[in-house]
Amino acid sequence: MTKSSSAAPRHAPNEFFASEHGELLINGLPVSRVAAMAGRTPFYAYDRSVIERRVQTLRRLLPPGVQLHYAMKANPMPALVGLMAQRVDGLDVASGGELRVALDAGMAPARISFAGPGKREGELRQALAAGVLINVESAREVECLAQLSDETGWKARVAVRVNPDFELRSAGMRMGGGPKQFGVDAEQVPALLRRIGVLGLAFEGFHIYAGSQNLNADALIDMQRRSFELALRLGDDAPGPLKVLNLGGGFGIPYFPGERALALEPVCEALAVIADEARLRAPGAELVLELGRYLVGEAGVYVCRVTDCKMSRGQAFVVVDGGMHQHLAASGNFGQVIRRNYPLALANRMDQPASGPASVVGPLCTPLDLLADKTDLPDAVPGDLVAVFQSGAYGFSASPLGFLGHPEPVQLLV
Amino acid sequence: MTKSSSAAPRHAPNEFFASEHGELLINGLPVSRVAAMAGRTPFYAYDRSVIERRVQTLRRLLPPGVQLHYAMKANPMPALVGLMAQRVDGLDVASGGELRVALDAGMAPARISFAGPGKREGELRQALAAGVLINVESAREVECLAQLSDETGWKARVAVRVNPDFELRSAGMRMGGGPKQFGVDAEQVPALLRRIGVLGLAFEGFHIYAGSQNLNADALIDMQRRSFELALRLGDDAPGPLKVLNLGGGFGIPYFPGERALALEPVCEALAVIADEARLRAPGAELVLELGRYLVGEAGVYVCRVTDCKMSRGQAFVVVDGGMHQHLAASGNFGQVIRRNYPLALANRMDQPASGPASVVGPLCTPLDLLADKTDLPDAVPGDLVAVFQSGAYGFSASPLGFLGHPEPVQLLV
Repeated sequence: MTKSSSAAPRHAPNEFFASEHGELLINGLPVSRVAAMAGRTPFYAYDRSVIERRVQTLRRLLPPGVQLHYAMKANPMPALVGLMAQRVDGLDVASGGELRVALDAGMAPARISFAGPGKREGELRQALAAGVLINVESAREVECLAQLSDETGWKARVAVRVNPDFELRSAGMRMGGGPKQFGVDAEQVPALLRRIGVLGLAFEGFHIYAGSQNLNADALIDMQRRSFELALRLGDDAPGPLKVLNLGGGFGIPYFPGERALALEPVCEALAVIADEARLRAPGAELVLELGRYLVGEAGVYVCRVTDCKMSRGQAFVVVDGGMHQHLAASGNFGQVIRRNYPLALANRMDQPASGPASVVGPLCTPLDLLADKTDLPDAVPGDLVAVFQSGAYGFSASPLGFLGHPEPVQLLV
Repeated sequence: MTKSSSAAPRHAPNEFFASEHGELLINGLPVSRVAAMAGRTPFYAYDRSVIERRVQTLRRLLPPGVQLHYAMKANPMPALVGLMAQRVDGLDVASGGELRVALDAGMAPARISFAGPGKREGELRQALAAGVLINVESAREVECLAQLSDETGWKARVAVRVNPDFELRSAGMRMGGGPKQFGVDAEQVPALLRRIGVLGLAFEGFHIYAGSQNLNADALIDMQRRSFELALRLGDDAPGPLKVLNLGGGFGIPYFPGERALALEPVCEALAVIADEARLRAPGAELVLELGRYLVGEAGVYVCRVTDCKMSRGQAFVVVDGGMHQHLAASGNFGQVIRRNYPLALANRMDQPASGPASVVGPLCTPLDLLADKTDLPDAVPGDLVAVFQSGAYGFSASPLGFLGHPEPVQLLV
């Protein structure tokens, strides 16, 4: 065992994956068996039971009437979207491509919404044809939809995505407040609402989203409250009653040493207060919570096989058959300013003690191809399996899969 | 025009792309016509004439006998590899997938080499079957090759990739010196060479590569000299004469404000001195210069179409139909510690003055989707074309193309 200060920050304890006889279990199956089912390594495995548990927890804590939506961008694997379509109240898509997957999954168009700051005309036409709710993000989109509606006779259902006049405190990624490409500045919304009325589009409500990957309950509570008040204020200028208020999501999951899981209870309690007020102040309006990463991020592991173990000038390297090309975020190249390690384990030696620090690297000819920098691991040999946790969101779909010509990883819903 | 300090660093002047009637020319064709040829936007266009010019310049300056190789990882588009196969002396591949493209391109297996720190057994078998030179990077690879050779009767041609005992000064990315996953530490090489001799593999030489994206001629000269001396020293323990010495490449191209093109002449002059010495000190050894980015990086432009123009709280946003999902490096998420702008232009308004700073953003629902942060541009309208320069290497193949479900960009060799 290596000496390491007990004060050094650690990864949050893994609540979702157990092990048996030294093997990581994925929905009850040993990782070596899942690898055999996959047919090859590397693979992403998404554990249905972890997803179900997360949805159940939310259902239990969320106030009645608050709709739970899945933001497909987090993980658009068709089988997983199919599962989510049966478990949540709606799907949120970010492109015409995602829209097709959502429709294939059997979600009713009435329960699908489409957001994105640069929707192409062809995508707006797709959305119109499907009859989904379009979160408009600019005056151009409104004019374009009016024209397409005139041309086709298909009614445009719209909500206005608002760039709020406040920022989400302590968000991992800020997406509202100040100058932004997302949505329409709150102060420009009244004019746009009048235009929507003049053009005769079907106004349904607002989408207000200020940031993602937030682990701070107080900040989320504050954001939801301010989003709610902003929506009510903007609603005064709306051409019709508020039917939908999408408060976004932004619930984070712990990735890095020192991060802790979000305290869900206080956030849901505060949401219950808002839901009560909404019944009085915006009767008939449906509150929507839109979550992506929080629903699926912790359910996924990325598993690769050890191909080589090397010592170079005193440092141990575990070389695996996967890497940054298949899991860009774990390599630290997906918006991270400072690279930190994702939680990771030797998945077929869960019962063995760490023998010392090793760096886990991939097969690419670049120093960026790093899955773990000097992390404590048991001794590895070629053939062993390495599992990267917290890999259910922004993994497969957010990685440069073609880089250096390796085969794509397999995806399995287990 | 905006006020901007003349002391602020600027992008290096564009030597490769002219314009006519306000339109960027790609190998003589106006960008709007290339867009029509592509059939849709976004697209990557690689200008053959720029590639040819770069190869000719190198051929003119390189000492006779130095072999010019293309490192496919920079851009593995099959048509482009096909062009390179006719222009250079060899191809370097980094995976079994790239190997197939190199063979398809018609390059003789004798002129292909395969490097990479985590070659899978299946890939080593492919390389053996094809008869290409394998740059071994660990003792395990040597043992595995010996076993596969015994089993198949196919002779393994090997060079040893060396992790040198020095670092490349001022490289954009260090890949040698200190503990590294690349190659075999110089001090471990003699033992490995003896083992190669015992196992009877066909030893051919060394591959020494200390870092990439270097714009400093002195640093490159220093690296080549030290690599040469190291190879000669290690050659004393080799089981046979040195046939190949791959000195790597590492020649950089200017991406960011303040960066200037590499001074090629002094590097080639210093290489001529090495080539002369090599004839005496390692007779029969072939020197190889392996370049990827330097051959194709400046020949490529990434072109996308403006879908929307927005003002948000005083800041102008030009929204385009491409972005980080198709050009990760330009978004600043490919190893950059500090995000800086790639050179970029409004490709159908090359003759118009900048009207002020605008940020060029893509269609994704993430603030990471940024192609240019507050850059001076003429006024844009939807339908205009934005060109990102220096996009011929590590663009298409190094990007998370599936992210958010947009269609892949087209690639054209023009």
